[in-house]
Amino acid sequence: MTTPLRLGIAGLGTVGTGVVKIVRQKANLLTARSGRPVLITAVSARTREKDRGVNISDYAWEDDPVALAKRDDVDVLVELMGGSDGPAKAATEAAIAHGKDVVTANKAMLAHHGQALAEAAETAGCVIRFEAAVAGGIPVVKALTEGLAGNDITRVMGVMNGTCNYILTRMQSAGLPYAEVFEEANQLGYLEADPTLDVGGIDAGHKLSLLASVAFGTQVNFDGVELEGIERITIDDINQAADMGYRIKLLGVCQMTGRGLEQRMSPCLVPATSPLGQLEGGTNMCVLEGDSVEQIVLRGPGAGEGPTASAVMGDVMDIARGFRISTFGQPAAGLSPAKPAKAVTPAPYYLRLALEDKPGALAKVAKVLGEAAVSIDRMRQYQHSDTTAPVLIVTHKTTRASLDEALAAMSRLDVLAGKPVALRIETV
Amino acid sequence: MTTPLRLGIAGLGTVGTGVVKIVRQKANLLTARSGRPVLITAVSARTREKDRGVNISDYAWEDDPVALAKRDDVDVLVELMGGSDGPAKAATEAAIAHGKDVVTANKAMLAHHGQALAEAAETAGCVIRFEAAVAGGIPVVKALTEGLAGNDITRVMGVMNGTCNYILTRMQSAGLPYAEVFEEANQLGYLEADPTLDVGGIDAGHKLSLLASVAFGTQVNFDGVELEGIERITIDDINQAADMGYRIKLLGVCQMTGRGLEQRMSPCLVPATSPLGQLEGGTNMCVLEGDSVEQIVLRGPGAGEGPTASAVMGDVMDIARGFRISTFGQPAAGLSPAKPAKAVTPAPYYLRLALEDKPGALAKVAKVLGEAAVSIDRMRQYQHSDTTAPVLIVTHKTTRASLDEALAAMSRLDVLAGKPVALRIETV
Repeated sequence: MTTPLRLGIAGLGTVGTGVVKIVRQKANLLTARSGRPVLITAVSARTREKDRGVNISDYAWEDDPVALAKRDDVDVLVELMGGSDGPAKAATEAAIAHGKDVVTANKAMLAHHGQALAEAAETAGCVIRFEAAVAGGIPVVKALTEGLAGNDITRVMGVMNGTCNYILTRMQSAGLPYAEVFEEANQLGYLEADPTLDVGGIDAGHKLSLLASVAFGTQVNFDGVELEGIERITIDDINQAADMGYRIKLLGVCQMTGRGLEQRMSPCLVPATSPLGQLEGGTNMCVLEGDSVEQIVLRGPGAGEGPTASAVMGDVMDIARGFRISTFGQPAAGLSPAKPAKAVTPAPYYLRLALEDKPGALAKVAKVLGEAAVSIDRMRQYQHSDTTAPVLIVTHKTTRASLDEALAAMSRLDVLAGKPVALRIETV
Repeated sequence: MTTPLRLGIAGLGTVGTGVVKIVRQKANLLTARSGRPVLITAVSARTREKDRGVNISDYAWEDDPVALAKRDDVDVLVELMGGSDGPAKAATEAAIAHGKDVVTANKAMLAHHGQALAEAAETAGCVIRFEAAVAGGIPVVKALTEGLAGNDITRVMGVMNGTCNYILTRMQSAGLPYAEVFEEANQLGYLEADPTLDVGGIDAGHKLSLLASVAFGTQVNFDGVELEGIERITIDDINQAADMGYRIKLLGVCQMTGRGLEQRMSPCLVPATSPLGQLEGGTNMCVLEGDSVEQIVLRGPGAGEGPTASAVMGDVMDIARGFRISTFGQPAAGLSPAKPAKAVTPAPYYLRLALEDKPGALAKVAKVLGEAAVSIDRMRQYQHSDTTAPVLIVTHKTTRASLDEALAAMSRLDVLAGKPVALRIETV
């Protein structure tokens, strides 16, 4: 009846296979909802012969994803290969050059080349959609770009790397040190080939940079993301933060301030009773704040075949329905450069120090904090069995500059054993 | 540059005023995001002269919302008057008859007339959007209809009446009886003029019937919603459910089963540690389950000027961007009749009984449960100061028919003081 929408799938890993299954199994549903058939005409992957548990023999095969992208019988390139450059970028560029829309799950590619790709797509009259690139099955890009389109977005926060959240919550529930849970996650296949992408916060940072662009109408600026991984979080930090009523999360935060755009992906403390604090295991959560809507919290699976394929299909269905929207919610040419804020918004901080067991040690620490105008909200000194005493401090709201000044002064004292740990407490 | 989208606002209460504010204050943002100016050309309300804290003197005034809907300089009727019939329905019908799109926050109108209005709109080539009608600022209709468009939806749950959730959580936190908190809510202006709409579950039932249509491709069937309010929930129920690790919520659940469509809006027990269980105060929450996406949880403010206006503007912006979608996610003519399920999905139940203080009383109760094939998971008998003993029972999963059989048999025993309370425990 109406013209079918013809997909070319590049990449038949977990997500690609999931997309093929949905398109094969739900033909009637997809047609009823979009008003036209949604078909796969061609596929491309590294290996043709491989049992994927799904029949791909009906589809044309291309060894080269660029050739797939150029095919006359492909309307939409569904790019599920990954990688910031290489074949993914080449195929995406080829698709755009040939007037095809692109649906991608590739956060790295868009974090690095989002602006250029968006400009090319819009010049060519094509759309690029990337719901699956951020927070798996959670339709967060749609919520921000469309659902909250009447809001000035004030802040976006997210726990968007399930592996990190698994590691942090597993450390707490099992009382295990970081290295042991890291190894466990590795055995379970939760980690990327290069684990720094996960535990170094890079993967989640990519996602944050995309949300920031959509939220604030700025050009994607991954280099502007202040990145810190979870590698130095100890079981002591987790336990002691819990004692103070907090949980440690690898939390992404972006907000537009008078000083520029803040983008931070770092371990933060959040109240244990907040939705973010209660998030366990590999689940993702995004918190969207707008001047009208106040706060919306979205929670769901951050990875996996079904959830990620669901996000891909959401984008495909929008295209099938004829929804045309600029890649980052407004025309790429109009996005403003994302000027990174020179200083982050003041916040309370959690400090963990190991004090030498000397008279007056605590007084010296308190003094340098006071001199740097960092005031103490709560403090605890724990019982100690060796020559050092663990001390936890929750400060009142302070600038990072004051805190850094205090930490530098502390390190010049002769009372600290080891480097103090300082973690931001994010108000949620 | 491009043609403006011209709104006619019918109803200038809290939400209408909020919409006027957004359109006035965010002209540039709305234009940047939608690619065209979004303007208000005309308004209508009961009283023209009233200080709404917003300037409406630029807009044409209509005493009659039907006249507003017909105006040549109105592209979209924004219907914010409320009421299932009367002026809201007349204005909506007039708008459609004159080829205008409609954005409405009116759950009652769509719960009762959604199918007819959707058919009329689609015949006329118009769209009706109603994000603001369900769960305030949460973009749940969009998430279901668009974001999860690649899923067979398996179940939708929601806490969608903030007043009821306020009452239930306030009862628990303050240890106050229902009547007292109801009066408190009344004083605070939280209740509808007819409070049965809130506490009787009708308002939330309206919303559930709309979500069911979108989720399952069925015609809206509000009459098919099994409705039960929160009026009979006592502070004892709340405290004793808490003792067993549960919270009581006015929970909407819809799911498609082999026996037909289940739509229930009733007080249910949910685990205290689940996102639904942790929901406090007036906040709303929707849980969307699909075969691919697994489970998505959306949380946000369920009412109020800003959040509801945000939802209205999300719909307006979609129209400004040229997104055209059938009212309930697929053409109204193709929606199947919603055949109500004859029996609800089996579940565990919570029972509260007051036993007469007689030897063998508990044995008799246990016997009738066993005879009806209802097996007991956990049981507690509390200390009692009078002649009756409170007994709490959590059953294993059972059919409602078996439970009703057991309850009927119990009532024929001579050991119960008062009617037993039975509440479903929803697996979340």
